Amino acid sequence: MAFGWIDERTELRRRSGLLRTLRPRPARSPLLDLASNDYLGLARHPEITGAAARSARHWGAGATGSRLVTGSTELHAELERELAAFCGFEAALVFSSGYAANLAAVTALAPHGSLLVSDAGNHASLIDGCRLARGTTQVVPHADPEAVRKALGTHDGPALVVSDTVFSVDGDAAPLSALAAVCRERGAGLVVDDAHGLGVLGAGGRGAAHAAGLAGAADVVVTVTLSKSLGSQGGAVLGPARVIGHLVNAARTFIFDTGLAPAAAGAALAALRLLRREPERAARARAVAAELYTGLTAAGLAAAGPDAAVVSVRAPSPELAVRWAADCRTAGLAVGCFRPPSVPDGISRLRLTARADLTEAQIGRAVRTVRATRP
Amino acid sequence: MAFGWIDERTELRRRSGLLRTLRPRPARSPLLDLASNDYLGLARHPEITGAAARSARHWGAGATGSRLVTGSTELHAELERELAAFCGFEAALVFSSGYAANLAAVTALAPHGSLLVSDAGNHASLIDGCRLARGTTQVVPHADPEAVRKALGTHDGPALVVSDTVFSVDGDAAPLSALAAVCRERGAGLVVDDAHGLGVLGAGGRGAAHAAGLAGAADVVVTVTLSKSLGSQGGAVLGPARVIGHLVNAARTFIFDTGLAPAAAGAALAALRLLRREPERAARARAVAAELYTGLTAAGLAAAGPDAAVVSVRAPSPELAVRWAADCRTAGLAVGCFRPPSVPDGISRLRLTARADLTEAQIGRAVRTVRATRP
Repeated sequence: MAFGWIDERTELRRRSGLLRTLRPRPARSPLLDLASNDYLGLARHPEITGAAARSARHWGAGATGSRLVTGSTELHAELERELAAFCGFEAALVFSSGYAANLAAVTALAPHGSLLVSDAGNHASLIDGCRLARGTTQVVPHADPEAVRKALGTHDGPALVVSDTVFSVDGDAAPLSALAAVCRERGAGLVVDDAHGLGVLGAGGRGAAHAAGLAGAADVVVTVTLSKSLGSQGGAVLGPARVIGHLVNAARTFIFDTGLAPAAAGAALAALRLLRREPERAARARAVAAELYTGLTAAGLAAAGPDAAVVSVRAPSPELAVRWAADCRTAGLAVGCFRPPSVPDGISRLRLTARADLTEAQIGRAVRTVRATRP
Repeated sequence: MAFGWIDERTELRRRSGLLRTLRPRPARSPLLDLASNDYLGLARHPEITGAAARSARHWGAGATGSRLVTGSTELHAELERELAAFCGFEAALVFSSGYAANLAAVTALAPHGSLLVSDAGNHASLIDGCRLARGTTQVVPHADPEAVRKALGTHDGPALVVSDTVFSVDGDAAPLSALAAVCRERGAGLVVDDAHGLGVLGAGGRGAAHAAGLAGAADVVVTVTLSKSLGSQGGAVLGPARVIGHLVNAARTFIFDTGLAPAAAGAALAALRLLRREPERAARARAVAAELYTGLTAAGLAAAGPDAAVVSVRAPSPELAVRWAADCRTAGLAVGCFRPPSVPDGISRLRLTARADLTEAQIGRAVRTVRATRP
């Protein structure tokens, strides 16, 4: 019978401790949240939720069509202008998700016959972008510019190097400057996903590319998400005007998708303006991550040194990772639990996210809870 | 230089009249809108925008994480329950877009070695789903169950038949009952995208699958969008609980994407409730489409008989389609203009969408304008 094969898969997942089920949360959770990607604590900020509410009432609940038909409002254009200016790029294009933005950038910027060079630790959306692109993908070892150089050396046509700026699982940063240098040497384009860098890295949260001096470069394209530090939903591609104009014409996830809802665009714009006004939030998110890391490693836990706001702690097994996260939860702390297939190396982890609005008392409590519940 | 190749492409597009640029609209447009997919006129309905606003204030501007981590709220669960019940399915899963829902359903329901049978007129997101899936895709002629039967006969392993229910470009309906019969005969699964059927077709807008007696079938999965008749943003997959549980575990665009923003989930839920209360909106959208069609064909225009709420009118060329749409616009009427690569057969069209809230005077004005501006 159609779909009958699913039962066996589900049973296998259950037996290996990898079965996931949804756990809907209430609006006001009693848990201390170190699991979300709300790095600047803006998703519940009244200025941001108020902007979302006003945008919905003024512009409508939905964009009503593709961005190419009725789905582009002046609100989208305003967000695109301010986002590009903030990050130091010529132009920006907003999508309904970061996933869609990544699929767009990778597929539309790799013409037929391209070589795509993809970091082994890249996010699923970049991987899917490479798989959809009309080119050949070479996966290179994680954070290894020399391997990228070698890969580029095997190819004569157009080439695109694709990497996260901050890797979601371990929170480590890509060697951006070295990658850009290698790309330039070979005339390759560079697409980097700054989902975990925007709002956290760079001057006032202008992102990893800005920090590396790559903002506005003719051969660099940055994708970002509006759903992490900006507390909203959606994604964007930032780059030269010629690239953005091309995406409008060639990116399928732009052309064939409904525009981002006005509430999300308005919330992201308000968050961006708040961040411009309170640039210290970015540094604070990084400082909180450093404190978490220090506290956890002092207790002998295998935490990875955070380059942004993600602190990852290795767990002995998927089952123990699940139990560890559950014990944290029982103790009032929400942490992420990453297991296969969400981890590239098969190693399960707790994933703690620093938020700029955490107090010292909350940081202390989080560290004590993770330590006390270790398996 | 990286991305230098784009200039030539852009110039080619310009010369062949296919270059697209964005035209952001104001919040209150003076144009009569027959271009959006707001079939029931709910995107600006105060009950729906109010629900979006309240949801943002109560639940936050963003979902803050993957649905598997912090991104599932009780609001998402409520929407999923009511959407599944309304359409007659066991369970539902909400995504950040219909594009993401289609990628999820097609990739996760085609295990390694599957045959995917895809209608030649399918939406880009279904096509991309097939390209991402770990199987072999056979594209069959448009709306041809016999061709589907033949394709399925060439394969022994698991198979998935993939089709729009209402094709976006011409507004024609797929032969759903025949497709389902062929699938059953061969033990294949059927995935249909009801983006343009939900809210328009079936009793009270319960969609094309419901109308065909396929709601709740063990071998049928329906994808929908929340951004058309429900006036919001997002998508969903409806199907047997086993399928939905599998998607939670296997669908990359579910696992690796931020959950739908609460404002969009709340707006879609409010729209669904309004549609339950005012089921006549669905029939009205279809009646408006029929009136548009009658008025246009009476003038000798090459309109396609609408099976739902989309009325397509052929244009002599891409350039003339653009000019025709522009002339409508000058006369105060917004219509869609579909050109390559957004049309599967290379034929450019005007695309008019019926809205349940159009008055007779507005319908008459629309018909007169399209007739008067014909190239």
